[in-house]
Order: sequence, then C-alpha cells, then structure tokens
Amino acid sequence: MNMNVAERQRECHSQLLSSHDARDLLNSVDAFLFDCDGVIWKGDTLIDGVSQTLDMLRSKGKKLVFVTNNSTKSRRQYAKKFQSLGISVSEDEIFCSSFAAAMFLKVNNFPREKKVYVIGEEGILEELQLAGFTGLGGPEDGKKTVQLKPNCLFEHDKTVGAVVVGLDQYINYYKLQYGTLCIRENPGCLFIATNQDAVGHMTDLQEWPGAGCMVAAICGSTQKEPTVVGKPSTFLMDFLQQKFQISCSKMCMVGDRLDTDILFGKNAGCKTLLVFSGVTSQSTLHDPSNSIEPDYYTNKLSDILELLGP
Amino acid sequence: MNMNVAERQRECHSQLLSSHDARDLLNSVDAFLFDCDGVIWKGDTLIDGVSQTLDMLRSKGKKLVFVTNNSTKSRRQYAKKFQSLGISVSEDEIFCSSFAAAMFLKVNNFPREKKVYVIGEEGILEELQLAGFTGLGGPEDGKKTVQLKPNCLFEHDKTVGAVVVGLDQYINYYKLQYGTLCIRENPGCLFIATNQDAVGHMTDLQEWPGAGCMVAAICGSTQKEPTVVGKPSTFLMDFLQQKFQISCSKMCMVGDRLDTDILFGKNAGCKTLLVFSGVTSQSTLHDPSNSIEPDYYTNKLSDILELLGP
Repeated sequence: MNMNVAERQRECHSQLLSSHDARDLLNSVDAFLFDCDGVIWKGDTLIDGVSQTLDMLRSKGKKLVFVTNNSTKSRRQYAKKFQSLGISVSEDEIFCSSFAAAMFLKVNNFPREKKVYVIGEEGILEELQLAGFTGLGGPEDGKKTVQLKPNCLFEHDKTVGAVVVGLDQYINYYKLQYGTLCIRENPGCLFIATNQDAVGHMTDLQEWPGAGCMVAAICGSTQKEPTVVGKPSTFLMDFLQQKFQISCSKMCMVGDRLDTDILFGKNAGCKTLLVFSGVTSQSTLHDPSNSIEPDYYTNKLSDILELLGP
Repeated sequence: MNMNVAERQRECHSQLLSSHDARDLLNSVDAFLFDCDGVIWKGDTLIDGVSQTLDMLRSKGKKLVFVTNNSTKSRRQYAKKFQSLGISVSEDEIFCSSFAAAMFLKVNNFPREKKVYVIGEEGILEELQLAGFTGLGGPEDGKKTVQLKPNCLFEHDKTVGAVVVGLDQYINYYKLQYGTLCIRENPGCLFIATNQDAVGHMTDLQEWPGAGCMVAAICGSTQKEPTVVGKPSTFLMDFLQQKFQISCSKMCMVGDRLDTDILFGKNAGCKTLLVFSGVTSQSTLHDPSNSIEPDYYTNKLSDILELLGP
C-alpha cells in the first residue's frame, strides 16, 4: 500500500496542536510531565522559550514533573543542572531512572543487608546511598581488568542481591563478568534495568549507545530479561501517582521519543504531546512503521505559550 | 506433568551410545566434526583418551574437522594449540568462527577497498588479513577512551562496510560507539556475529560472558540483528560441504553444547553425538525444557574407542 504524506497524516490519529487544543489541555490537566533531553534542553543548551512556558504553567497552578531515563545523574545533580540553566526546579519534581532504581528496591523491601552491584554511573550509586542501600561497582570498577589465567578465580560478593544496569561509559569485561556472576550464581538476585534506550545524545553533536546497549549485553550473557524501572515501564508512573495523588487522566506527558515518552504516557492513560525539538521528526511520526501515536504534536514546548496568546 | 528421570529418558529420543551404535557410526560416517572446548580439551588440558581416539579414526580413513565458535584465535593459532597438546592437526582441518567471518566476506564478494571494523580479538584480525581484507579496531582500540564534551565529534571511517563482533575481553564504550556508528551511518554496512554463545570457559575454573554478550550489546544500540557465521548457523556447514564434498548424512557432529554443536549438526542433517565432558550434563539433556536431542550421548569422546573394543 503506497500512501503519500497527506494520506498518512489522515491515517494517523495524532493532531497538530491547535490553540483550541492548548486551551483544552490547560483546562483539563493538573500535572505536566516532561522528558528533559530534547524537550527542556539539548545537551547543555536550554531550548527556546522553555523557561517562559514553565513559568506560565506554574502561574496557572499546574504541577510540573520532570521524568528522564538518563541514569547518569542523581536528582540532586539534575536540580543543579536546571539551576545552571536558569530554571528553578526542586529535587522533588525530578524523576530520573537512577532514582527509579533506588525506589524500586525500596518499595519492594529489598533487604538493607544485601548489596547492589551497579553497571552504570555516579547517579545510580548516589540514589542508592540516599535510599539507604549499599552500592558496589559503578565508575570505580571502570579501571579494573581481568586475569584470564589457569587457576585464577574471579571472586564476586555473594551478598549482592540486585544488579542495576544503566548507561555506562566505563563499561568493561570486568563489570560484565561481575554482573553476570551475581545474576547467575547469587540465588534470587534481581536484574534491574534503568531503561532500554538504544541510543541517546551523550554529546550535542551525536547519539551514543544508551543503557539499552549495556542491558542487552547482560541479557546476552545471563539469558535473563530485566525488570525495567524507567520509561516506558509503569513503575515510575505508579510511584508518581501515589506520591502526588493525581489521576493519570489529569496528566499530560510531553516528550520527544515515541517508544519511551509517548508510550509511557499512553500506557498510563495520560494525555500525550510529542515535540519535534528532539530525536523524532514529523516523518517518523507519520511513517507507516510507527504504531505509537500521541494525542497531539507540535514543534517545541513553547508553542503552547504562543498558541494560548497574550 | 511430573515425570521421574527414567520416564524423561524414555521420552527423549537420544540414545546412550552402545557398542553397536559406535560400530554403526564408524561404518556409516566419512567425516567426524568436533567441537574443541569440552570435547578435545578443557582450557589448556587435553581430555583423557582424545589423542588415541583421533589416531584410531584417522587410521580408519575418517576425515577429521575441528569446528569451534571461539573467535579469539586464528586457524594458525589453533594449530599451534593442538601441537602444544601433542596432537597433529593441520590448519586446513580447523574451522574457527574467526575464519568463518573472513570466509563469509569472501564468498559474498565483500569489496577489498572497504574496511572491516572488529569488536573482538586477534584471531579475527589475522583471518581477515589472510583473506585479503583490511581490519580495524580489535585489541588496539581496547586502550581508547571517549570524550563526551560539547562540540566534540566522534569520527568513524566511512569506508567501513562490515562490523564483525566476537568475544572481546577488551570491550569498551569507544568500540561500542565505533561499531554502532558504522552500522547506523555507513550505507549497507554488514553486521556479522562470529557466534552468540552466552558464556564460555575463558578460564578452567569459570565461565565468562561470551560473544553473545558483545553481539547483544550491538543489537541493543543499533536495533539490528546480525548475520551469525558460527554454530549453529548453516554458513560453516555449507562451506565445509563445498570444500570436502561430503554429504551431511555422512558426517557426525560431536559436541558438548546442545544449542550450538548439536543444533548445528541437526540443522544440517548430520548424525550427532553429545558428550558430557563439557558444559552439558545428563540432567540438562533430559530436562523437560530441552528440545534439542542428539542421536547419541556418552560421557567422553574416548568412549568410542572403548566401545569398539580391541
């Protein structure tokens, strides 16, 4: 079946955000959930008009929540990043997947005496510590090497009860073996993925392998599937709902990725708004191979402000 | 459905190798294909009676072929290993997955002017060179690090036309990004996996993440599936058949792994013999979750010699 762009747009149930839709959203939604990279900023640069749009939403009494799959930073580190970009956001408003991993262990009563092995970066270790858990691995094990020699036994801590895997620019064979041994040999050891994003904008100019790369590596060696705590899994949403006591139908998820942000919002029954200021283009949205359709789409977050008018 | 061991053995169509079967095999088979680790040796130690068994088979005029998924060595390096263990095997009799990767490129007329990026070890680079191809990466890139800084562009060679991924104890983020960029951005770039073994005996005392770990990582970041050239894919078998002009029904595959060796033999229509001198135990073979059944099973290769008698 060959369709031209106009036909594909008619097939798609998403609507280009209109002034009417923007007013409707503002009237029907109590909380706006934002992805960060590609919506709020690109790399270390704020996207045009974001600050004014957030101010307007706050002035209307809307709850703002920032939900990111990036696990390399903690909530505290994210609050600092917002501050450095001139936006005042409190730690309580930030839900990064490093925090999600720690909260997953907490709500599942992970025993304090057990340890958590981390294939990932500083953010995960900091969130684990803040939640009262003992983390091992992380950046420190990035310097370690292995000895593939006869009679050499690679020892691992038998009290590790969970392996958390996120984006790790210091990934190596030592960590892969450590995590694999814990999951294969420690009875009941959990395998938690912060997220499974294939790639992400680790630098402004390029995409790089994301947590999905490291998570897949451990799936490959253990032949096990992880519990995912970041988007699009429902764990974070359930946690958010419990914390803020807002019904999902009164929330709008704003994001630049179909398979994480928009799917996350749709899975939970939120309204969804796709912005083209990140990794997704209009042609990807309307491509016949795409089955994830947001309620609305627009170029960038601040379009809401313009559409509402003075 | 609960079955005891005896019942499960009756359900299984595999037979414990008998004297009659051994004689039958010797009469009906022209070529014996052997996996190496777990059949011929364990780590750097020859398994009991292997040397005498191979001598007997050669004396009966049988063709011997050694087929291993290990890609870290080249054929030349394997011939040296056999020699160091006191067994005379020629390079022509060895089919390792590093060689398979180079042959795959050759039979598919991979252009000589294009380059091959290697996530893997020395064996792959050596086989590529012997086949007349230009390899990049490998152990050398194990020392490289990345710069995740604004305005920093990670450059990759646009003339890379294939990425070969095998077991790599020097895996790092640099190589993951390099391979990912080639597959995502170089038009038509091939993604070749030497094999997908989850783990392997990198040391005598322990299993370690195998090529399946590194291959999965690249699947995770590229969202692409590789072409597998090692066991259990049929590429090596087609190649072997063409080279030796022996029908598969006249071959017997001997191995210690169900999902690679035995499946490889069965896929091609060879006779299959599972030995318990490697990673598979009798209980795994007879476990209800196992669906891969060899024609015969026995403890170790030299049982053939004993069963045939003096």
